[in-house]
Amino acid sequence: MENVVYSGEGVRKYDFAVISQDVDFTGHAKISSLICNILNAAGEDARRHGFGIGELSKRNLGWVLSRIGLEVDRALAENEPYTVETWVTDYTPLRTTRCFRLVDGDGKCFGRGVSYWCLLDYVKRSLAPMDSVRSFADTSITDIPHPCADPVKLRPLQVDPCSSHKVKYMDIDFNRHMNTLRYVELMLDEMPIDFVSGGSPVRCDFHFLKETLLGDTLDVLELVEGESYRFELKRADGNVAVLAKFSHLPCNVL
Amino acid sequence: MENVVYSGEGVRKYDFAVISQDVDFTGHAKISSLICNILNAAGEDARRHGFGIGELSKRNLGWVLSRIGLEVDRALAENEPYTVETWVTDYTPLRTTRCFRLVDGDGKCFGRGVSYWCLLDYVKRSLAPMDSVRSFADTSITDIPHPCADPVKLRPLQVDPCSSHKVKYMDIDFNRHMNTLRYVELMLDEMPIDFVSGGSPVRCDFHFLKETLLGDTLDVLELVEGESYRFELKRADGNVAVLAKFSHLPCNVL
Repeated sequence: MENVVYSGEGVRKYDFAVISQDVDFTGHAKISSLICNILNAAGEDARRHGFGIGELSKRNLGWVLSRIGLEVDRALAENEPYTVETWVTDYTPLRTTRCFRLVDGDGKCFGRGVSYWCLLDYVKRSLAPMDSVRSFADTSITDIPHPCADPVKLRPLQVDPCSSHKVKYMDIDFNRHMNTLRYVELMLDEMPIDFVSGGSPVRCDFHFLKETLLGDTLDVLELVEGESYRFELKRADGNVAVLAKFSHLPCNVL
Repeated sequence: MENVVYSGEGVRKYDFAVISQDVDFTGHAKISSLICNILNAAGEDARRHGFGIGELSKRNLGWVLSRIGLEVDRALAENEPYTVETWVTDYTPLRTTRCFRLVDGDGKCFGRGVSYWCLLDYVKRSLAPMDSVRSFADTSITDIPHPCADPVKLRPLQVDPCSSHKVKYMDIDFNRHMNTLRYVELMLDEMPIDFVSGGSPVRCDFHFLKETLLGDTLDVLELVEGESYRFELKRADGNVAVLAKFSHLPCNVL
């Protein structure tokens, strides 16, 4: 996809650097730290354009990340600067699509992603129609192509749990829901350490289905399929909270 | 201690701000994020003055945090800037003492700490005499007073574990040892959420005794003593890894 021109109106850039808290034992950025800053860029981009969570919360609305597919070609070293480029491509009645490109200090694209977001009505505790933010968001839609494949469909697993996790103080965000990053960390912790820290190109897909609250217990289900790792995080009430898949990518064949 | 003048030769200042990853569900900086940046300031200060871990590792030496006592008067809000002031007060044959003051954007001191550090010889896997770095470190010693009480002595607990934790990918630092911050997080997760997130003045003391490695299992022992919470993190081989105590402080009576 490197021949696509990602510039002009609608692509916004947010600068980051790999800080000491981001690196794993190899001295390279954990994939969870990239996801963290991708979400930070999305949040800041929405805020700057009038549809951030601060503005929406006045109307009892909030963004919920529904799915994200993400490709990362290499692991960045500590102190490396990088830019998250982001743009919005469309609104359907129940979701909007936001794309990302990760660009390193040499201007080389080393990652890309496509995410789907829904609106949550905090009073009704249900999804809100995307029309609720059309007035804010209309000016943001671009016709720039998606930089990689959309998030793949994932299905629940038929395996026994490999571990379980009780949701505690360090896990929760301002809604007292388990933080997206902590879900990702739970899964990184279950994969072979060489897979997670090796720096080989990786594709990961996440589907966030149900919230998890302080005090809930999550079972972690894992299924190894060839060189891919599939996960299900399941609440004690039997509801699936998160589905995910991590695979190695062939390098430079994206 | 506010009448002590903390300025001049030997006190160095490192600037931080509360970023989104630092805040808990109340929107205020978790105490673990302050400890993280206190350790970042210590590491950077050592590096800038020629005795950082990069320089020491060439001689198979490294710094190990042995004890720290820390007082925090209030919880900072997201985006608040703050400065970690740090200075070294002395070298004994087996340890050096580094002090900290936390200063908010209005110039008001809102926290302070005293820490003891030892030198580890990575080849012998034992403590190294502080003389090994005297040539680097001599110029750093100041006679500035400690900003609060030194780390208190702590004793092991005689209680059953309240939880256990297996050390995984997200927990380990460049030595494949459990990261200091993850120990702190394990303890924050076991205290009442109102104590941890309330923003009342708190004093915490940590004593780090033994390392914990990838794959080890840690038992978490907790003892509530009045309004204080005492912890022991114990390895499966029976060795104590960490002792700690968290207490509410009377405000402005430090």
